[in-house]
Amino acid sequence: MSVLSEARPACSEGFTPKTVVFQPDRPLLTDGGGRIAPLAIAYETRGTLNAARSNAILLCHALTGDQYAAGVNPVTGKPGWWEAMVGPGKPFDTDRYFLICSNVVGGCMGTTGPASINPTTGKPYGVDFPVVTIRDMVRAQAMLIDHLGIETLFCVAGGSMGGMQVLQWAASYPERVFSAMPIATAAKHSAQNIAFHEVGRQAVMADPDWRSGRYQEQGVRPEKGLAVARMSAHITYLSEAALQRKFGRKLQDRSAPTFSFDADFQVENYLRYQGLAFVERFDANSYLFVTRACDYFDLAADYGGSLAMAFKDTKTRFCVVSFTSDWLYPTSDSRAIVHALNAGGASVSFVEIESDKGHDAFLLHEPMFIATTRGFLDSAANARGLAPDGSSK
Amino acid sequence: MSVLSEARPACSEGFTPKTVVFQPDRPLLTDGGGRIAPLAIAYETRGTLNAARSNAILLCHALTGDQYAAGVNPVTGKPGWWEAMVGPGKPFDTDRYFLICSNVVGGCMGTTGPASINPTTGKPYGVDFPVVTIRDMVRAQAMLIDHLGIETLFCVAGGSMGGMQVLQWAASYPERVFSAMPIATAAKHSAQNIAFHEVGRQAVMADPDWRSGRYQEQGVRPEKGLAVARMSAHITYLSEAALQRKFGRKLQDRSAPTFSFDADFQVENYLRYQGLAFVERFDANSYLFVTRACDYFDLAADYGGSLAMAFKDTKTRFCVVSFTSDWLYPTSDSRAIVHALNAGGASVSFVEIESDKGHDAFLLHEPMFIATTRGFLDSAANARGLAPDGSSK
Repeated sequence: MSVLSEARPACSEGFTPKTVVFQPDRPLLTDGGGRIAPLAIAYETRGTLNAARSNAILLCHALTGDQYAAGVNPVTGKPGWWEAMVGPGKPFDTDRYFLICSNVVGGCMGTTGPASINPTTGKPYGVDFPVVTIRDMVRAQAMLIDHLGIETLFCVAGGSMGGMQVLQWAASYPERVFSAMPIATAAKHSAQNIAFHEVGRQAVMADPDWRSGRYQEQGVRPEKGLAVARMSAHITYLSEAALQRKFGRKLQDRSAPTFSFDADFQVENYLRYQGLAFVERFDANSYLFVTRACDYFDLAADYGGSLAMAFKDTKTRFCVVSFTSDWLYPTSDSRAIVHALNAGGASVSFVEIESDKGHDAFLLHEPMFIATTRGFLDSAANARGLAPDGSSK
Repeated sequence: MSVLSEARPACSEGFTPKTVVFQPDRPLLTDGGGRIAPLAIAYETRGTLNAARSNAILLCHALTGDQYAAGVNPVTGKPGWWEAMVGPGKPFDTDRYFLICSNVVGGCMGTTGPASINPTTGKPYGVDFPVVTIRDMVRAQAMLIDHLGIETLFCVAGGSMGGMQVLQWAASYPERVFSAMPIATAAKHSAQNIAFHEVGRQAVMADPDWRSGRYQEQGVRPEKGLAVARMSAHITYLSEAALQRKFGRKLQDRSAPTFSFDADFQVENYLRYQGLAFVERFDANSYLFVTRACDYFDLAADYGGSLAMAFKDTKTRFCVVSFTSDWLYPTSDSRAIVHALNAGGASVSFVEIESDKGHDAFLLHEPMFIATTRGFLDSAANARGLAPDGSSK
């Protein structure tokens, strides 16, 4: 099997970042007719795989997330994106489960993406990288799960774009998914979702330093365009109420407006900071590709327009979660998933969590969300025959 | 009186665009400590002022609107922005009322703004133009109304930023406003409102062709940045439901996605068109100034934090209108205005109109809105003693 495992330097205490590279005889063939080879997948694991290989959970990250769900992210120096949920004694309990999180294909944190070298040209792919779909991301993850010798995942969980991957996993590989948690997500991107993503892409492509996607070769980066894209997107991650509570019309280190275009208001300063911090850690072309993957996501379309057919006769146990103030993927999107699962006869619980924190609530310390996740996983673990220490009973 | 009225060429049948220029001995002194002189105000009138000068209505335009509320806009060749509402037999009935609409100060359709010549330097103001407020816009309008010899306006009406001007008129000049219609608006800009505007400004300023605001002198225009700003803002003008109904996930003149960054989806194509059309008619620096004016708007702040005090003992009759699917200035913003008016003892009716068209509903043909406006104006006209032909009874 032509797989080369190359360990990368340890970056943070308590885990070893890993990359598996699939050689050209095992290419990733994409929905769009592309071929990605070699394919590197950067991933992290936490906890211990039990002898029966039955306690593995795959965490799927959101748009600009990465494999660093917990611990310290070595790139940003900040806590992982799901620090609230992953760790010893937390819902995704590393004392009980074996947790896997990989960077999506098209990403920029070690998995092959537009910044990787195109073997045909010896130069970075740039926009010649194949446009990938959520299903392509899941196909790549399945290659990783095969590589790890895991037949059936105890759970696949994720929010936002991660939730789309969860749904795709359950549809594409129902026999490999014992339980699934699609969180704050949708089975298809709406016109408004596409519109916001298109604004972000146009902001990147409007930056002359984007250089038609060939900026790497020319030693520049479309930082201003990418920052604007992030600022625009960031508004959609927060509720109006959260912005109002956090910032309102408060001024930034001044007692009166300056009658200028300075960041008089705290919310302006906050957004500018979000834009600047983002360009430090994310690749502009990757942003184009991951947003595009979401826009193309329409799970029902692959099943004759019927979302219920995507989950026909599924044995997977589902827990669908939405948040009341999420206007990016509102509860109605989750309800549509639940209706389809019910129509398909699936085992499904649905929890709408009261929160005024908007879409990003799934990343934050939300007690009801934590309790819901713990309860669902406990119940599924019992059904799966997992002991409290993660061993197979 | 040092006012020079200079007629500009007629541009469209049925009206004569006009500009009044206030000379330096009558400067506009701004809230930010600026001085604008000379001050040109471009305006249009329709209908006939009655002998008692008691049938004048001032229409206040929104962010990127202009003085061309009705008829054919000579710049775009398209109908005026309030064509649905203004004309013979329409709610703002040109057979009964004398309608005035002027371009705001800071605008780019003939009124003095950042693209005008700074008399101190002989070059365009650019970002050296004084940052203006909604109150400055209203001060300039009051100069125009004085010039027209009108003591009391029968009505001041407008939506969005136009509605802010209505509120400011009622607060600053209560004795000059017989009736007022603030529509789809707010008494202050929220954190989310400011955030969206800041994204737009950053998009403009990120464009290297903005040249720190001095693009006019250098023969370029920040068209890409301004187009991105417009795309972002445009999403906020429509409801999610309207976008879904109009576009959904429909593809643009193709039967399958292209797996590229082309405008596969109709909504992408629509947004790109909105961006391109906007830069044809609007000045980038003006966009910075008008968005800033909205952000600074917080009417209560000028009255010790009490919005009710802004309308204390007012005799103006109010009709406040909101639209159910407007998420830019939601009904709660209108309710706050109504509560303040009630607390101030004002005569106020409040109508929330069921519509799924979002913020832009106020510009569209909405039968309930048309009926509401007609009813309010008829009742106010009776109270004012206006005959059906507009004469004073």
